[in-house]
Amino acid sequence: MKISEIGGEFAFIKRVTGVTYDDPAIVCGVGDDCAVLEYDRDRYLLVTTDMMVEGTHFSPAWCSPFQIGKKLMEVNVSDIVAMAGTPRWAFISLALTPDTQVEFMDEFYRGLYDSAARHGVALIGGDTTHGPSLVFNIALAGDAGKDLVRYRSGALPGDFICVTGTLGKSEAGLRLLQKGISGYTSGYCEPVCRLAREGRAIGRRAHAMIDVSDGLGSEVAHICEESRVGAIIDGEKIPLSQDTVSAARQAGEDPYRYALYGGEDFEIVFTLPASGVPELKKEFSDFTVIGEIVNTEEGIHIVRKGSMMDLKKGYDHFV
Amino acid sequence: MKISEIGGEFAFIKRVTGVTYDDPAIVCGVGDDCAVLEYDRDRYLLVTTDMMVEGTHFSPAWCSPFQIGKKLMEVNVSDIVAMAGTPRWAFISLALTPDTQVEFMDEFYRGLYDSAARHGVALIGGDTTHGPSLVFNIALAGDAGKDLVRYRSGALPGDFICVTGTLGKSEAGLRLLQKGISGYTSGYCEPVCRLAREGRAIGRRAHAMIDVSDGLGSEVAHICEESRVGAIIDGEKIPLSQDTVSAARQAGEDPYRYALYGGEDFEIVFTLPASGVPELKKEFSDFTVIGEIVNTEEGIHIVRKGSMMDLKKGYDHFV
Repeated sequence: MKISEIGGEFAFIKRVTGVTYDDPAIVCGVGDDCAVLEYDRDRYLLVTTDMMVEGTHFSPAWCSPFQIGKKLMEVNVSDIVAMAGTPRWAFISLALTPDTQVEFMDEFYRGLYDSAARHGVALIGGDTTHGPSLVFNIALAGDAGKDLVRYRSGALPGDFICVTGTLGKSEAGLRLLQKGISGYTSGYCEPVCRLAREGRAIGRRAHAMIDVSDGLGSEVAHICEESRVGAIIDGEKIPLSQDTVSAARQAGEDPYRYALYGGEDFEIVFTLPASGVPELKKEFSDFTVIGEIVNTEEGIHIVRKGSMMDLKKGYDHFV
Repeated sequence: MKISEIGGEFAFIKRVTGVTYDDPAIVCGVGDDCAVLEYDRDRYLLVTTDMMVEGTHFSPAWCSPFQIGKKLMEVNVSDIVAMAGTPRWAFISLALTPDTQVEFMDEFYRGLYDSAARHGVALIGGDTTHGPSLVFNIALAGDAGKDLVRYRSGALPGDFICVTGTLGKSEAGLRLLQKGISGYTSGYCEPVCRLAREGRAIGRRAHAMIDVSDGLGSEVAHICEESRVGAIIDGEKIPLSQDTVSAARQAGEDPYRYALYGGEDFEIVFTLPASGVPELKKEFSDFTVIGEIVNTEEGIHIVRKGSMMDLKKGYDHFV
């Protein structure tokens, strides 16, 4: 039986996890952007890991090795920042091919260190091996104030649903590359996640947070599932950049689909009470209110062009 | 320029690491079995990561998925135990193929959990994606008493060099599988590393410790380099199991080569003062004295059949 036959990646993860441990140091295990562990009196330790595979997450024909290294670090930092944490220590595993060029890896590491410096991350361990194709993995640890760490599970009915920056950038770039159309591709090749101080500013007011790695649809669904709430998204309010809109026009596609189901934008979706919106704007203003948390019975919907639809889940690697 | 042209894996790692960080929490970065970080008053946090690639580290034709999952956990635990630490929290990244069977992964996870239970490890996070071949990575965190953690760098001239268990088991199994000879293969398919309590018993007396992942030759060289000492190994004393000797005979090869350059035995090489040997024997006896640490000017040698040879470094993935 293939993974796709049991319902894909998320069904598979549910099947093989769910073990509970009698370890008081585990504050939160599988099921959020990071695992959360006891650390010291005031802080938790956050740990995440993300893998990038040649042909699945990147292609050296499309993106430079600098961009690939940078993206690997950004996708991991994003998970820590999206829990209002501060990224600190990274551990990298590399599977290189017998033909991998030193010059390629020098540039890859330059991108990795460029992102690490941007986020104050120290790269202090790893494993280097070889295989038939390039595979890179980072495990990243960080910390977060115990009163500040935010989960997917804290959303409350009445909360406003917000998203930082703009969405669809990564999918826009990917579609142009796939179709061989020149245009805006840096959203795919060189995405940058939010800074820790932005995540912390959000965390001080937010009830729930998640990063956009699988598309807005999937992330809102995760918040709703973990918080046992519903959501209604105003499709017209989903923020798109002019670059994304132009790229979608070039590709003959709907930019809102990119935002909803594209993924890899590494923005933050968060929910907060209405009063938190003006408060947060004073400190951090690059976000948009796109909807509202409702009771779980009301489901998860998106309103667009006057009609309401089920918000289908986003990109799943195995469906 | 290929990685092999600059001297292989270890030369590559030196090229891309070596950045220093102004972070008082980093006790030890790249260069030992684990990174060591400040944790609480009495303990350090240890972190390691190891990747296993289909075709490089395992083949589903040779080993069961149970064995592959188990081995992935054991190779990581080994790094923590070899610094006298206690393994605690694991994070797994998986690249599966579109054809990967759920039944295969169920067995893989059964092996993973079997090893995790043996070592008291909680699997609390990960990333699941897909690619052209199977790649598995674990990042593992553990802790160690600040007075107990042991490095590669502590060896002193006059120390006895010891190794736990027997060596060459993994290479023996691999060679039989490669040659299609039936026989003893579980040393390759299902290696088990030492338990944390054994590592701690060693750590209480040892000056330096390292696990055997790349072969005795490579591990002794690491200790010598990091401790700035030399070593002389008595080749005849290297412990081999009867299974390893039999497999080597079947393959028409030298079992001592397996021990010296084979790797993946996940035993512990350690050095301790002569007085430590009888003390340790009272608490943990499954080890053998195989040589002595000498001054760095004397180099790294092995005596075998009355002649002394340079102990060449072990298996390097890119040479």
